[in-house]
Amino acid sequence: MQVHIITIGDELLIGQIIDTNSAKMAQMLLEIGAKVTARTAVGDDHEAILQALRLATSQADIVLVTGGLGPTKDDVTKKAIADFYEVGFVFHQPTLDRLNQILERLGRSMNEALRTQCFIPQNATILTNKMGSAPGLWFEEGGKVVVSMPGVPFEMEYLMQHEVLPRLQAKFNATPTAHRTLFTAGEGESTLAEYLKDFEENLPPQVKLAYLPSIARVRLRLTVSDPDPFFIEKTLNEKFREMEGLLPPKVIAGQGDDSLEGVIGRILKEKNLTLSTAESCTGGYLAHLITSVPGSSVYFMGSVVSYANAVKMNQLGVKEETLREHGAVSEQTVREMVAGANRLLGTDVAVATSGIAGPDGGTPEKPVGTVWLAVGNKERTVTRKLQLGKNRLINIQYSGFYALNLLRLFLLEK
Amino acid sequence: MQVHIITIGDELLIGQIIDTNSAKMAQMLLEIGAKVTARTAVGDDHEAILQALRLATSQADIVLVTGGLGPTKDDVTKKAIADFYEVGFVFHQPTLDRLNQILERLGRSMNEALRTQCFIPQNATILTNKMGSAPGLWFEEGGKVVVSMPGVPFEMEYLMQHEVLPRLQAKFNATPTAHRTLFTAGEGESTLAEYLKDFEENLPPQVKLAYLPSIARVRLRLTVSDPDPFFIEKTLNEKFREMEGLLPPKVIAGQGDDSLEGVIGRILKEKNLTLSTAESCTGGYLAHLITSVPGSSVYFMGSVVSYANAVKMNQLGVKEETLREHGAVSEQTVREMVAGANRLLGTDVAVATSGIAGPDGGTPEKPVGTVWLAVGNKERTVTRKLQLGKNRLINIQYSGFYALNLLRLFLLEK
Repeated sequence: MQVHIITIGDELLIGQIIDTNSAKMAQMLLEIGAKVTARTAVGDDHEAILQALRLATSQADIVLVTGGLGPTKDDVTKKAIADFYEVGFVFHQPTLDRLNQILERLGRSMNEALRTQCFIPQNATILTNKMGSAPGLWFEEGGKVVVSMPGVPFEMEYLMQHEVLPRLQAKFNATPTAHRTLFTAGEGESTLAEYLKDFEENLPPQVKLAYLPSIARVRLRLTVSDPDPFFIEKTLNEKFREMEGLLPPKVIAGQGDDSLEGVIGRILKEKNLTLSTAESCTGGYLAHLITSVPGSSVYFMGSVVSYANAVKMNQLGVKEETLREHGAVSEQTVREMVAGANRLLGTDVAVATSGIAGPDGGTPEKPVGTVWLAVGNKERTVTRKLQLGKNRLINIQYSGFYALNLLRLFLLEK
Repeated sequence: MQVHIITIGDELLIGQIIDTNSAKMAQMLLEIGAKVTARTAVGDDHEAILQALRLATSQADIVLVTGGLGPTKDDVTKKAIADFYEVGFVFHQPTLDRLNQILERLGRSMNEALRTQCFIPQNATILTNKMGSAPGLWFEEGGKVVVSMPGVPFEMEYLMQHEVLPRLQAKFNATPTAHRTLFTAGEGESTLAEYLKDFEENLPPQVKLAYLPSIARVRLRLTVSDPDPFFIEKTLNEKFREMEGLLPPKVIAGQGDDSLEGVIGRILKEKNLTLSTAESCTGGYLAHLITSVPGSSVYFMGSVVSYANAVKMNQLGVKEETLREHGAVSEQTVREMVAGANRLLGTDVAVATSGIAGPDGGTPEKPVGTVWLAVGNKERTVTRKLQLGKNRLINIQYSGFYALNLLRLFLLEK
C-alpha cells in the first residue's frame, strides 16, 4: 500500500501555515501498514492540482488529498478532480439536508457558498464529515483510490479514522501489521534509548521500534509485520514484555493512546480521591489538561488560577510573609498554595505551580524558566524545581505535563 | 521567479517530524518576490530524489532542496544531484580545512563520515555554512538554479539569508510582492465571503484575496504583485481600506498576526482595567489563552475554575436556589459567576462559562454542546447561548474563543 499525499492551499505555499496534516496522516496510515512514499503541496490552482493528481496516481495506489475544500474555495479542488476523471457534477441532496440541520442548530441560514458544497463529481462516493460542512470524497478507478478531504485538522482526522482507514484496510491486502505502544513519562528519548540499546539492536527483522517523543512524554511503538498472524501476536507480546522489563517501573505510565491526564483520572477514580489545582505560571493550562478528559467532573473539583499575589494571599491563604521573604516563585509558596487549594476547594489532593514563564521577568537569582511545582494532601507534600528555557508557551506546557507526572507518581506512592 | 521546494528525509514521510522548513523558506522567498509554486517531500532514496529533481526543474526556475545532507546521510542527495547533472565528484580542500578548524575548536578528531562531506559534485559552487559541517551547494544550468542545503532549520535559515536569497535576487528580476492581513472574529468564512463577493470578483489581476479560517476566527489576506513598488503600496492600502469598509465594524478584530487574546490585552491596558474568569465547561482553557500573552499579569488577576457546583456556590457565591431552579448550565448561573469573580478577585471585568462539553451528560432540554457565556462589570452583564456539537475538545476551544470575542465587543462598547 503506497500512498502519495497531496496538500492543497496557497497558504501552505507562502508559508502562512505549517503543514501538520501530512505528518498526522502518515502516522495514522502506518497503523494499517500503509506507507507514504511522497508528498506534494500545490496552490489553489486548477492546472497544478490536475498535474499533481496525474503524477501521484502514476506512482502510488492511494492518493490522499487534503485542503482546497470548504465554502469559499470548494470549486477549485472538486473541479480539478472532476476534470481529472472527465466527469460532470451532480447535486447531492443528503449533503444539503445535513447542512440545513447544522445551520438550524446554529440559528444561521443557508447561503450560496454553502449550497455549492452540495454539488459533487458524478463518480464520487460521499464520506460523511460529522465535524464540518464539507464532505470527504472517495474515488476509485483502475484499482487506484483518490480521496479528497477538507484541510481543517480535526475534520481530516475524523474522516481518516472513521471513513478512510477502514475502507483502505478493506480494499487493499497489506502484509498484516500490528502495533503496541508503551507510554512513558519523565525520561527523555536519549535516556530511554540507552536502556533499550541492546534490545533494539537484537530485534528480528519483522519488528521495528519507534520513539515518538512529545513534551515530557515519549511513546515507544513496537510494530510487527508478518504474513502469519500468530507470529505477530506472539512476537508482539514477548517483545513488549521484554521492553517493559528493561525500563525503570516509574517511567511506565500506560499503553496505547493513554495520556497523563487520562491515567491520573483512572487512579483518582479507583482510589476515590478528589483533585484541585492552584496555578500561577501555568495560568489554567493544568486545569485545562485535566478537564480535557471526558468524565473528569467526577474527581476534579476546580482550580484557583492565582496570577496576582493578592489572589494567592486572599484566596489561597499564602502568607504575606512567605511572599515577602521567599518570593512568589519559591518552594514555600507552592507548599502553601497546595494547602490552600485543598482547604478552599475541599479536595484530597492538590497540585500547585509558580514560575517565571517569560520571555521577560527574570532576575539573576531566579532567571526566566525557573518553576516550582508541588503536589500534596493533608499528610505530605512533594516539591520539584525546574529550570526551563525562555519560550513562554513551551515553559507553560512543560510545567503542566511535568506537574501531571509528579501527581501520577505521588498517587502511586500513597 | 517560480520556486519548487524538495524536502528529503524518511523521517518526514513517516510523520515523525513536522516540516517547518518549507513554511520558513516560503516566507523568506516572498520577501524577494519569489513564489513557491509546489513542494515535494521524498524519502532518502536515490531514484525518488532524481525523479523529483527532473519534475521540479521542468516546472520551476529555481529548485531548493533541503535535507539529505549531513555526516550520516550525505551520500544519497549529493549522488542523486551529481547523477541528475551527469557529473562526477571532486575533493574540495577548503571544506576540509574548515572542518579541521571546527573539529580543533571542539577538541574532536576527523572521521570518515565527515571526510565524505568534502567530496562535491564537479559543477557545484560551495555556499559556506557557518552554522554546521555540511556546506550548501549551488548549481546552474540552462538558466535554472538548483540549491541543496542541510535540513537542520538554523543551518538552512543561515544559508538562505546570507547566500541563497542575495544570489537569487542578483540573478532573477522578480516581480515585487506585498501582503496585508485583516484579522476578523465572530463570523464564518462563508458569511465574510458574501460581504466580499463583489469586491473579490472585481479585484484587478495583480491582487489576490485569501481566506484563512481557524476556530471562531478568519484572517483575510490581500496580496499584490506588480513591478512598480508604488503601485503595490497604493493598491494594497486602497483595497485594504475598501475591504474593511465592506465588513461590519465589529467583525474587524485586528491586523497581521494579531490574536484575540493579544487584542484584548491591548484594550485592557489602554483602559487600565483588570480581568478575571470564572470557568466551568472551559475548565481553565480561557485563562490559559489569556495568560499565553507575555505581560498578561499586568491585567489578568486570576480565575476560579468551578467544575463542582460546591465551588460555584462556596467560592463564586452562585445561589443554591439558582442552581436548583435553572441548573448549572443557565443564563442565571453565568450571570452570578461573573458577579462572583469580579467580587472575589477584585476585578473590573469578568468572563464566565458554563456548558455541557460532552461527549456525555446531555439531557433533552440541554443537549451536549449547550453552552452559556457571560461578560460583565459592576454595571452590566451580557450573555450568549451557544449550541455546539459533540466533540469535547472542540466545544472547549470554540467556547473559549467565542467568550474572548464577546469580551472584546463588551470592552469596545464601554
